[in-house]
Amino acid sequence: MIKIAPSILAANFSKLGEEIQSAEAAGADYIHVDVMDGHFVPNITFGPLAVDAIRPLTSLPLDVHLMIENPDQYISDFTNAGADLISVHVEACPHLHRTIQLIKSTGAKAGVVLNPHTPVSAIEPILEDVDLVLLMTVNPGFGGQSFIHSVLPKIAEVKALADQRHPELEIEVDGGVNAETARLCAEAGANVLVAGSAVFGKTDRKKAVEELRL
Amino acid sequence: MIKIAPSILAANFSKLGEEIQSAEAAGADYIHVDVMDGHFVPNITFGPLAVDAIRPLTSLPLDVHLMIENPDQYISDFTNAGADLISVHVEACPHLHRTIQLIKSTGAKAGVVLNPHTPVSAIEPILEDVDLVLLMTVNPGFGGQSFIHSVLPKIAEVKALADQRHPELEIEVDGGVNAETARLCAEAGANVLVAGSAVFGKTDRKKAVEELRL
Amino acid sequence: MIKIAPSILAANFSKLGEEIQSAEAAGADYIHVDVMDGHFVPNITFGPLAVDAIRPLTSLPLDVHLMIENPDQYISDFTNAGADLISVHVEACPHLHRTIQLIKSTGAKAGVVLNPHTPVSAIEPILEDVDLVLLMTVNPGFGGQSFIHSVLPKIAEVKALADQRHPELEIEVDGGVNAETARLCAEAGANVLVAGSAVFGKTDRKKAVEELRL
Amino acid sequence: MIKIAPSILAANFSKLGEEIQSAEAAGADYIHVDVMDGHFVPNITFGPLAVDAIRPLTSLPLDVHLMIENPDQYISDFTNAGADLISVHVEACPHLHRTIQLIKSTGAKAGVVLNPHTPVSAIEPILEDVDLVLLMTVNPGFGGQSFIHSVLPKIAEVKALADQRHPELEIEVDGGVNAETARLCAEAGANVLVAGSAVFGKTDRKKAVEELRL
Amino acid sequence: MIKIAPSILAANFSKLGEEIQSAEAAGADYIHVDVMDGHFVPNITFGPLAVDAIRPLTSLPLDVHLMIENPDQYISDFTNAGADLISVHVEACPHLHRTIQLIKSTGAKAGVVLNPHTPVSAIEPILEDVDLVLLMTVNPGFGGQSFIHSVLPKIAEVKALADQRHPELEIEVDGGVNAETARLCAEAGANVLVAGSAVFGKTDRKKAVEELRL
Amino acid sequence: MIKIAPSILAANFSKLGEEIQSAEAAGADYIHVDVMDGHFVPNITFGPLAVDAIRPLTSLPLDVHLMIENPDQYISDFTNAGADLISVHVEACPHLHRTIQLIKSTGAKAGVVLNPHTPVSAIEPILEDVDLVLLMTVNPGFGGQSFIHSVLPKIAEVKALADQRHPELEIEVDGGVNAETARLCAEAGANVLVAGSAVFGKTDRKKAVEELRL
Repeated sequence: MIKIAPSILAANFSKLGEEIQSAEAAGADYIHVDVMDGHFVPNITFGPLAVDAIRPLTSLPLDVHLMIENPDQYISDFTNAGADLISVHVEACPHLHRTIQLIKSTGAKAGVVLNPHTPVSAIEPILEDVDLVLLMTVNPGFGGQSFIHSVLPKIAEVKALADQRHPELEIEVDGGVNAETARLCAEAGANVLVAGSAVFGKTDRKKAVEELRL
Repeated sequence: MIKIAPSILAANFSKLGEEIQSAEAAGADYIHVDVMDGHFVPNITFGPLAVDAIRPLTSLPLDVHLMIENPDQYISDFTNAGADLISVHVEACPHLHRTIQLIKSTGAKAGVVLNPHTPVSAIEPILEDVDLVLLMTVNPGFGGQSFIHSVLPKIAEVKALADQRHPELEIEVDGGVNAETARLCAEAGANVLVAGSAVFGKTDRKKAVEELRL
Repeated sequence: MIKIAPSILAANFSKLGEEIQSAEAAGADYIHVDVMDGHFVPNITFGPLAVDAIRPLTSLPLDVHLMIENPDQYISDFTNAGADLISVHVEACPHLHRTIQLIKSTGAKAGVVLNPHTPVSAIEPILEDVDLVLLMTVNPGFGGQSFIHSVLPKIAEVKALADQRHPELEIEVDGGVNAETARLCAEAGANVLVAGSAVFGKTDRKKAVEELRL
Repeated sequence: MIKIAPSILAANFSKLGEEIQSAEAAGADYIHVDVMDGHFVPNITFGPLAVDAIRPLTSLPLDVHLMIENPDQYISDFTNAGADLISVHVEACPHLHRTIQLIKSTGAKAGVVLNPHTPVSAIEPILEDVDLVLLMTVNPGFGGQSFIHSVLPKIAEVKALADQRHPELEIEVDGGVNAETARLCAEAGANVLVAGSAVFGKTDRKKAVEELRL
Repeated sequence: MIKIAPSILAANFSKLGEEIQSAEAAGADYIHVDVMDGHFVPNITFGPLAVDAIRPLTSLPLDVHLMIENPDQYISDFTNAGADLISVHVEACPHLHRTIQLIKSTGAKAGVVLNPHTPVSAIEPILEDVDLVLLMTVNPGFGGQSFIHSVLPKIAEVKALADQRHPELEIEVDGGVNAETARLCAEAGANVLVAGSAVFGKTDRKKAVEELRL
Repeated sequence: MIKIAPSILAANFSKLGEEIQSAEAAGADYIHVDVMDGHFVPNITFGPLAVDAIRPLTSLPLDVHLMIENPDQYISDFTNAGADLISVHVEACPHLHRTIQLIKSTGAKAGVVLNPHTPVSAIEPILEDVDLVLLMTVNPGFGGQSFIHSVLPKIAEVKALADQRHPELEIEVDGGVNAETARLCAEAGANVLVAGSAVFGKTDRKKAVEELRL
């Protein structure tokens, strides 16, 4: 079944605890935390403090997406704060294998993220080493962008590799996900969908989560 | 009279709105927002989103302290989000005069920050151009550190320059401020005190603010 | 038909206007502008000012090749100065898809450039998003280098992809182009040839352009 | 007598040779070349090629102002191209003494530049090592900005030091120079004035140069 | 036959000369020099001085592995110091083709290195240009790590390409090499094995070298 | 009495242990270790491994001079390897006070280094926090350069400050030290002299050390 990971980037920042509890009550599977440093991407959002603050308020796994340079420097801070899964960008990691091992050594699961233009071949040699591949369907940095359809073949490509070599791999999609694009992603092989305004922008969040799952 | 600027770095991040309203009710004068990018300082905190979220919840001036590299890139984002005063580090600004003019051109007031080791001479040529000088009494990056007493003569030095050349200059101190060190800072010439746990760590915040003001 | 794009890097810098008009009179199709920042490549050439200065002097499209880090920062400057097409290096763009969309959003056409060692697979996912692919047949930085023959199979590879997925794609080649190598490039599938001394180094520039076109 | 150094940043870039010869005919003393790399300052202008192109067209000393990071890498390129004096920013040079010696070792004279906010104390230990101190009266990056009056006391401060320790030191001012501000700079102790539109923006350039000299 | 390249990273640094002579006496084929700059990898080891010091003490080829950013800046220093082969990381070289030509222009042989996660496709276009491909079987930075088995298919992939296009290509493996993993590497197609503690950590170094060769 | 600190940069790198023991036998007071990363200075020398290798071979204090960017990242490595004193450059430390506290927190003594052009005012606010001030009398990066006489007044300036505020402060000089310049440094107030070829370049090292002490 498709898992839904509401992104707190779209939540009301002044009452993050409440928002997360509402997402959990609505049936979310993960809480997605978009960490931005203003260097890898042109926006600054939040860091370990945010993870630390929301950790006690939910039993859902915290899925932390690092859009930062030099992620190795901050990985243990995020795991100590309570991250369950930490994903890093292949474009930011000249020593990607080390970074992944480092994440795992802290006890968290490890994911790798591909920007819209990055070919799947960039991560083939480490496919078995990660728990999750996250395919960006917008350019990372801001919420509210439109889904990039040309990423769909890359989802299918990762799915085909996973079927062959790593069946338990989670395939996550982030960016422009709504009821319509959710279906396309699921058909292409994704099983975790990050949703921003498609959950936090709706009044009936339970219904919103359900619609994304169909 | 001494102004108190509670720092949201010490607030409960999961209910930021409530915390800020409690600080305002306690008699705070400014809300201090510690922006960190994980590059200028070894921590990532929050960015324009945080300012945007708390702006509608308080009528206090938002005093935004940028602990980031290349601040020019983010200044209009912070002013648009609702910052009233934006301070930048002299150590991060090879074109400090331009950065200060840029802040002012967006309609915000401008401050300049000195790390504990940085001599006051570093900012003498632009003293008249800023609305506020912020002297760090801890090394920026984290809350909860101890006050560095050797910064006191620098406060007095700025005060002496201000008396001569720029009497309306605000002189702010950030780091390790408690009832005892607050008095030392005020005696040396500071008139705005940033307080973290000395406000947000106390149950009776009204009393906490008052004790810092004495 | 093969288009010829004389590069102003080989022109007489002290009378750029005259040189460009001579190139246009000689039958050139584009004017190629080699922008270098001394960081992405070990040379500094010119920036938006050069585009601005030559814009009123020719009706030819200005084909601007950015050999710079962080190109996003300068794209609107180049379009405002009069660039018709802006190309960026895949090696300089961790967020290549965003950079291409940014170029298009300013009204210019968008190209992507591959260094001699970069495999074509690096740009496959965004092939449909660009108007032009530029294959370097020398290492960018200086004029007057020798053509690298091992790039020819990459030209053919881009041509094959374009035939399948994007027939209007322009395929440009830059570096060491002369009458002999021009033919090899055209046979491999290129349709735009950048020429430096092969045009500006010749007395009869009309004849020079014609020889490259054969 | 006051020397005038017209800056080619304000010249017509499409006929640089002609512009420079017009400046020489108007009585200019130096030709000022503003090199920008898009990293130290937010603009890209020109590099060694420009110096090389104009060198044969004038007998005036070429006064090259490097607004670039890592200037050491390009110094010999500029001297080889024909620079007579090369100035570097103290804000860009962690090893300023080495950079100055490197300039001199290539046969050029050496200058050091201070941004508007930088105190004169930053260059005191190497005052005797340089041939020229350039004080920026605008923030470097663009032509056409307004003169920053608060730099005047710094000019006087350099002049006082020079009188004591290095009487042949040239003191140059760059930014917002016109007939009125020229007089203020000269009174404060400057003897070389960079002029952009105040020369190249005027029809009668001879008269323009003379008015700046008064 | 398999060549053995003992890495001086595992030697006793206080008597490097003696160690190298012992390796030569044990039958080593190359001396492997691991240069680290603390930026590309999180360790600083040694630079041109080390090559210079050991050059007169052995007749073996010095195989210098640059784990540094901006290697172009140091290549001639290493060749002048006595390097016979210089290898650079594809992850550190946006202009890899230029860097390889630069190495060759100094008279040294040129190698290219792939981190464990980097796909072989990243170097396909320059396969004929290099003398050696080095596949990391640990993440570069430290001695004493465990062999990463998932690199074995990449060795085979390079071997297949080499058989087709460049039969004299040397294929080197570095990291976690011991008698057991040496056999796996050789079977996959490697012909040069870097060994650290597997040689310098053993009392009978002759026997150690022989065991790796089987 | 003047202390002599032979720099291993001038020692025979292939038999470092022997060299250090010879320096100790000659009466040296410290062993000076010049760490360079190829980024802060244009040379790469050695890192923690070198300190680790020589630590067991001498009872002299190891005085480690970090000519590296981001020194905080490596400080504990050097203390763990056996450094007794660690010095960092003010030009490399935007958070100098933190860096000094970090050094001390590892159990080592802390020093701060000034390049030849850097004014003494740059370190005045942290004078009491350091155990040693090192004044460069050459530009860091290489051995064998000539003493820069214009640094002598800066030595005297530090000495005057130390007499007033921190009498136990050690004042060290590094660069171009020989019997003649040693005397000048001592007269100006230095009490620790780094010597390279003036010790390791001499046959009678005992005599060499004694001559520097006079």
